[in-house]
Amino acid sequence: MELRADTAAATSTERWVEIPEPVLDVYKLWRPTPLIRARRLEKQLDTPAHIYYKYEGVSPVGSHKPNTAVPEAFYVKEEGATGMATLTGAGQWGSALAMACRFFDLECHVYMVRVSYDQKPYRRILMESYGAHVFPSPSDSTEYGRKLLAENPNHPGSLGIAASESMNAAASLGGKFKLGAGSLLGPVLMHQTVIGLEALEQFELAGEYPDVVITCNGAGSNVGGMTFPFLHRNFTEGKNTRVVAVEPTACPSLTKGKYAFDYGDTGKTFPIMKMHTLGSNFLPPSIHAGGLRYHGMSPHVSALYEHGDIEAVAVPQLATFEAALQFAGAEGILPAPESAHAVRAAIDEALRCKESGETKVIAFLLSGHGHYDLAAYDAYLNKELEDYEYPEAAVREAMEQLPEVQVHAR
Amino acid sequence: MELRADTAAATSTERWVEIPEPVLDVYKLWRPTPLIRARRLEKQLDTPAHIYYKYEGVSPVGSHKPNTAVPEAFYVKEEGATGMATLTGAGQWGSALAMACRFFDLECHVYMVRVSYDQKPYRRILMESYGAHVFPSPSDSTEYGRKLLAENPNHPGSLGIAASESMNAAASLGGKFKLGAGSLLGPVLMHQTVIGLEALEQFELAGEYPDVVITCNGAGSNVGGMTFPFLHRNFTEGKNTRVVAVEPTACPSLTKGKYAFDYGDTGKTFPIMKMHTLGSNFLPPSIHAGGLRYHGMSPHVSALYEHGDIEAVAVPQLATFEAALQFAGAEGILPAPESAHAVRAAIDEALRCKESGETKVIAFLLSGHGHYDLAAYDAYLNKELEDYEYPEAAVREAMEQLPEVQVHAR
Repeated sequence: MELRADTAAATSTERWVEIPEPVLDVYKLWRPTPLIRARRLEKQLDTPAHIYYKYEGVSPVGSHKPNTAVPEAFYVKEEGATGMATLTGAGQWGSALAMACRFFDLECHVYMVRVSYDQKPYRRILMESYGAHVFPSPSDSTEYGRKLLAENPNHPGSLGIAASESMNAAASLGGKFKLGAGSLLGPVLMHQTVIGLEALEQFELAGEYPDVVITCNGAGSNVGGMTFPFLHRNFTEGKNTRVVAVEPTACPSLTKGKYAFDYGDTGKTFPIMKMHTLGSNFLPPSIHAGGLRYHGMSPHVSALYEHGDIEAVAVPQLATFEAALQFAGAEGILPAPESAHAVRAAIDEALRCKESGETKVIAFLLSGHGHYDLAAYDAYLNKELEDYEYPEAAVREAMEQLPEVQVHAR
Repeated sequence: MELRADTAAATSTERWVEIPEPVLDVYKLWRPTPLIRARRLEKQLDTPAHIYYKYEGVSPVGSHKPNTAVPEAFYVKEEGATGMATLTGAGQWGSALAMACRFFDLECHVYMVRVSYDQKPYRRILMESYGAHVFPSPSDSTEYGRKLLAENPNHPGSLGIAASESMNAAASLGGKFKLGAGSLLGPVLMHQTVIGLEALEQFELAGEYPDVVITCNGAGSNVGGMTFPFLHRNFTEGKNTRVVAVEPTACPSLTKGKYAFDYGDTGKTFPIMKMHTLGSNFLPPSIHAGGLRYHGMSPHVSALYEHGDIEAVAVPQLATFEAALQFAGAEGILPAPESAHAVRAAIDEALRCKESGETKVIAFLLSGHGHYDLAAYDAYLNKELEDYEYPEAAVREAMEQLPEVQVHAR
């Protein structure tokens, strides 16, 4: 078993990696998640398309993130470590890892971007309810954090800084702590494929097969988890399902980024990876889909896009919230702002079917509910949200700082 | 069909009332809800008991409340009304009715206790996301509200006042608006029995049958929904399942209340009902299980308790939070503080089985998740919560104001 949860270098020569029994034991608490035919939405759109959504919000923390948090914690425990450290923005990933660490009796240290720590206490409390220690980042518990706080005691923090602090913390604990990763890396995407594998079986039960599979796309965990099993069928069984990755126009790494080697973090301490990137110094506009505000992209998703195996589309913020509320009015569930990007693209696809009269089968991943994102909905309802143009100048500036050594594989 | 959703006088001579197709159509979005064997909790408790929980938190609003909100909205629409008015405390019921009204294209006016409206904006925003109008109560949209605000512009409001305002609003709209009820009344409890009916079928699939069924108890919707189908089997098939209703020591209407005619609201405008009551003027201590802070009790649940068909137990606040965190650590789900009362009693029952070595089958209702109650968990983790003694003096005072005309049925 070459699978390792804690390193970017994780590789395996096996096509299939067995899910360990103790991981299945936890998955059973909420898995399989439902695949739901959105009949009420179809009716509302008056479309001949069949729309299905795979809903991951039934997990105890309300998103798909535990699908990888649980095996990561399991393998880390197996390796004899006593805890995990990680970074989180608004806290969706952090709360998943906090729960997983509780299950496997591991300490959990979460470095949460300070501005979120202060403004969004609910996710922090959820993490603490599972026994995690949550540090506002920059924190005084790492050397790097103390340095930043000395310069500015009110430093708002950033994901890049939180990443550096969590690595710092893991390293300083002498190998007893391992780093947890919520997206981007191969093992994470592989763990998440449980979503798509379930969906394949569920479509068989439903007697249908999707013509198109749609997910949002931040760093790749939605795309990898939901679509890789369908792509596998495309490659091995001659299926022809379209895969569409949906990103925000404010942070369009696939549609506007460069396919190049770049750093995964602002601090440039992660190994460089070949991926679609807007530049590791690029700071995206403050859209409310925090999980999609990342400069880079999973190398696996990037390669598939570069090879033309998947499509990508960028959608603006206001249109995603509009779609989210339309979906809630039809199906009840208020989507997480990230997941709402997939909702937007699925509705657009269904409306095109209405025009053309095609009875396509559309599947999308609803990766989480929006119960922790109500401040964003409040802002939308009060017309305080805005759309962001493609931040061309900021991207161009960030691009100038790509690592100089580039390997051209093609 | 005698079923009416909007009146306390609703009666039917039928034992079974068919669920209308449009209601089933909505139920299908999240029903059947899972019945889960709590194997990880059993292991943690080292008990020979089998513990099952029926989990209603998978509904789009995170609780069992839509089970009645949806049929209420359906029948109100059938009757030709254009909207519904209701009251809500922290907003669990209000958000369920807001969703249901959206589904059936009804206006929804929710009078939310002002102190909750100000301090707990998330539920309000959820209601608004479904298109509801949420008024802080007392509000300036009713005569009664305006009167109270003239006396005190910063009036914090109360459930009793919100009840009066919602009735006022419904009445002033000339029959076009109907009142929605989240608990207490016969139709509500009947709608909720979908929970227990599903559980019966699920236990058949599991090849087990519960020796004891446990739910929390505020005004009766948990008890009625989960346990009435099991009681029906007790009565008609000679089964012998114990039913335990769990209430807070701070508001012990079954264990300490009087079985008497009383008003359902502080304003004494509802019809009087024979029920267990602490007096309609009794204001319970500020425990965090807001849904259990009610002076009275469903007449149906009261009659069953009086006849010895069900048991009741009161548990203190700190012990329920302790149980909730133990449950979250084993099963992942952080319970709503209300539901945590059932968790506490189920754990206690399982621990007694450990002592006695009995392999009992314990079932409890986990009626909602706690994602909107994290401030309460924060207070618990920071040791800011306290237990409340039985508020004997306040109850005695309230009891002196029971309606004078009492009918003694026994």
